Amino acid sequence: MTPLGGDRRRSGASALRPPVTFGRCDRCQMPTVRRADGEEDERGERLCGSCAAGERAVAQARRAEGAVRTQLYTRRGSVELVDGGGGTLTVSPPSTPRALRIALLAPPWLPVPPSGYGGVETVVALLADALVERGHDVTLLAAPGSRGRARVVPLLDRLHPRQIGASVVEADHVGRAFAHVEAEALAGAPYDVVHDHSGWVALAMADRLPAPVLHTVHGSFDEDASRFYAEHGAKAAISYISRAQAATRPDGLAVDAIVPNPIDVDAWPTDVPKEDYLLWVGRFCPEKGPHRAIRAAKAAGRRLLLAGPVQPGQERFFAEAVEPHLDGDQVRWVGEVGGRAKQELFAAAAAFLMPIRWPEPFGMVMVEAMAAGTPVIAFPEGSVPEVVEPGRSGLVVGDEEAMAAAVADVAELAPADCRASARERFCPQRVAARYEAAYRAIATPGVPDAAAAAGARGGVSDARGEEAVAA
Amino acid sequence: MTPLGGDRRRSGASALRPPVTFGRCDRCQMPTVRRADGEEDERGERLCGSCAAGERAVAQARRAEGAVRTQLYTRRGSVELVDGGGGTLTVSPPSTPRALRIALLAPPWLPVPPSGYGGVETVVALLADALVERGHDVTLLAAPGSRGRARVVPLLDRLHPRQIGASVVEADHVGRAFAHVEAEALAGAPYDVVHDHSGWVALAMADRLPAPVLHTVHGSFDEDASRFYAEHGAKAAISYISRAQAATRPDGLAVDAIVPNPIDVDAWPTDVPKEDYLLWVGRFCPEKGPHRAIRAAKAAGRRLLLAGPVQPGQERFFAEAVEPHLDGDQVRWVGEVGGRAKQELFAAAAAFLMPIRWPEPFGMVMVEAMAAGTPVIAFPEGSVPEVVEPGRSGLVVGDEEAMAAAVADVAELAPADCRASARERFCPQRVAARYEAAYRAIATPGVPDAAAAAGARGGVSDARGEEAVAA
Repeated sequence: MTPLGGDRRRSGASALRPPVTFGRCDRCQMPTVRRADGEEDERGERLCGSCAAGERAVAQARRAEGAVRTQLYTRRGSVELVDGGGGTLTVSPPSTPRALRIALLAPPWLPVPPSGYGGVETVVALLADALVERGHDVTLLAAPGSRGRARVVPLLDRLHPRQIGASVVEADHVGRAFAHVEAEALAGAPYDVVHDHSGWVALAMADRLPAPVLHTVHGSFDEDASRFYAEHGAKAAISYISRAQAATRPDGLAVDAIVPNPIDVDAWPTDVPKEDYLLWVGRFCPEKGPHRAIRAAKAAGRRLLLAGPVQPGQERFFAEAVEPHLDGDQVRWVGEVGGRAKQELFAAAAAFLMPIRWPEPFGMVMVEAMAAGTPVIAFPEGSVPEVVEPGRSGLVVGDEEAMAAAVADVAELAPADCRASARERFCPQRVAARYEAAYRAIATPGVPDAAAAAGARGGVSDARGEEAVAA
Repeated sequence: MTPLGGDRRRSGASALRPPVTFGRCDRCQMPTVRRADGEEDERGERLCGSCAAGERAVAQARRAEGAVRTQLYTRRGSVELVDGGGGTLTVSPPSTPRALRIALLAPPWLPVPPSGYGGVETVVALLADALVERGHDVTLLAAPGSRGRARVVPLLDRLHPRQIGASVVEADHVGRAFAHVEAEALAGAPYDVVHDHSGWVALAMADRLPAPVLHTVHGSFDEDASRFYAEHGAKAAISYISRAQAATRPDGLAVDAIVPNPIDVDAWPTDVPKEDYLLWVGRFCPEKGPHRAIRAAKAAGRRLLLAGPVQPGQERFFAEAVEPHLDGDQVRWVGEVGGRAKQELFAAAAAFLMPIRWPEPFGMVMVEAMAAGTPVIAFPEGSVPEVVEPGRSGLVVGDEEAMAAAVADVAELAPADCRASARERFCPQRVAARYEAAYRAIATPGVPDAAAAAGARGGVSDARGEEAVAA
């Protein structure tokens, strides 16, 4: 690039300026006045005034982009001036952290809370209410029919319970959610953080949303999920629902937070008389182990109730491994249960069996059993060691034989202790507080009080990420 | 906002400046020098120098955004200077329109071209090669295993033929495609246009891709699709594969182009001896009318071959309306056919029956019959009047009775005429030329030669949109 001005300009004599010629702009080909020495841009093109101005605007906007994002979407935390004595003023963290403006993006399939089954939707419902209770400004972007204490913005005009995973629905839902988030920012009320629970599209496009995004991984890292997260995981901060789940993540995927799912223990009955049956609840697939529960129950000489749906693809396993044992007496299948019936089924059980053989990311049924006052006997897979408090809310055992032996042991555990354990670890307020720490880490990197904030976005080590939320 | 300067500045006396006080920035709360009359931004906040500078950068970048997009992503067409006589120079359109840099975004499920069935993938394969032949710089963003004359960029590392419509796959594919398009632009080689054939995610996010997007609607406007396009259709230019398809679009969805699907007539055999059977090919559902084809064939006293898969959900209709008529002689089902066997099945038929009762968006099977030299007898639904040339490549009839009668009439139509009709209307070169006009309309709004260009993006009327591509 040949600089304009320089020595010639300082000479001050117009007679010394280079001769003026005419030519065409290299880009738009319009006739233009051309000086022999100048107007070339960095690619060596000779541009007319209009094209050169456009070029400069581009360069300027590119340079400004980082500042724009910071300014638009990063709030600075309030700080207070403290008289340090001797007339000096120092800046200290605010005594009360300011409230956050939070958008929770729920999936498009079911309302929040769900009317029947709906794991993610239940988590989002409890989290939304608890965040409102903590004083935050919470907007719930969700399927129609959603409700709660947060401001609810329904995105689509109907539910899609039978199209779970369909891109036509998810793309529509997330496209509308992004438009909402952007409109709020442009209207001068940007969200501090968007907490995404919606699936795949939002994370794949999170780098195109001008707001910090925390994405919670709700599922397990199967082959599709691992490939997906390996490619797109760096587009948002990532949180996990157990350390076990985080341990199975693909290489390089950050750990910005680990926060368990919440449960509202007070919503579970305490007045259901205990009966003598053991309970297994889940999908009928080998990983979940209904056949192992049957073996353990028979070894213990106890009754077993099995609850859950037989989903497409599971018919054969059910017919071969489960159905032959259903005798209408010692081993019974009660189908899929929900609502109050499900709560009573959990609460009346003597023990809940969890003989899984796969890396269960969370295992909500264990927490439900605890909330119902029923001790859990589980194999040490996946999240089990993080959920079951041995000797208080249940026991962790190695195989069906040990599970059968443990049935007598857990009879000594008090239902109240099971409930207390669930409340201490998984109450919505505790979960909300841990998510709040994660939000502050990505929304307000400059606030001095958040030790975790410094590196939480991007390069934080796993250990630090865990400490930040486990504190 | 209180302006700084003004009268006071002109007075020139520093003694008259307002008294200097100290305070805190309303935004970051850092201590700052404050003048009594100034530094308020438009929201009435008093800001420190740092926050005010950020604010100005935001405002500036917002103002510049339009210019940036235009500059980065809109190429100007070359123009030439012409001596108009008498020493005047006028600007004329270039004699040769410049080549375009085109990204074709194919779906993630199957390779381009597909090894077996794959309507969209076949269209993209033929279009890509034809655009290369026209001198354009074409990149094919597609599933692995794709090939052709264009530069191929495979996005995922495996095919997903059994997950069609799954958001985990589509979001991954499109997220990678967007990253590629953006990387090319930042590397100084932006695409003039991205032509999207990939499904839903790309259109829902097309306004976040800093390149002009043409999205071709390949399916029919069922309920989900109509809702989706009504919400997201304005994020890209939209093209249709028939006037009939465009007519069923939701209110307000633009018509930027109507371009039929291409077929490579030369790839079909011309040496297959004709036999006496009638042919029906399709999915076994009432709309496609296999039962009406059976009725027409029986009324005509002719043999009928039915080809196609019985897909999940179609078992009952097949069992009730089709299976009872399969006698192994007059009416036979040959299952799903592909490759050379399919071509011979089409080419040896006396006539192809298309007794549909739904708004068929295109009806590739009709064009395949024509390319095979087989006349088509079709009901006047959907795209039929745009595909069949009555008296040359087939006949359009009102019901099964008329269809039976027409079987004798189409015996007089020459296979060569059917092929010629297909070639004239649907050859890849013709299709590519029409898409090219649509590309130029959205990529180069300033080029004088494109009459269609002026209003093609956004407000163009349907009629003009159609003329632009039908020319």
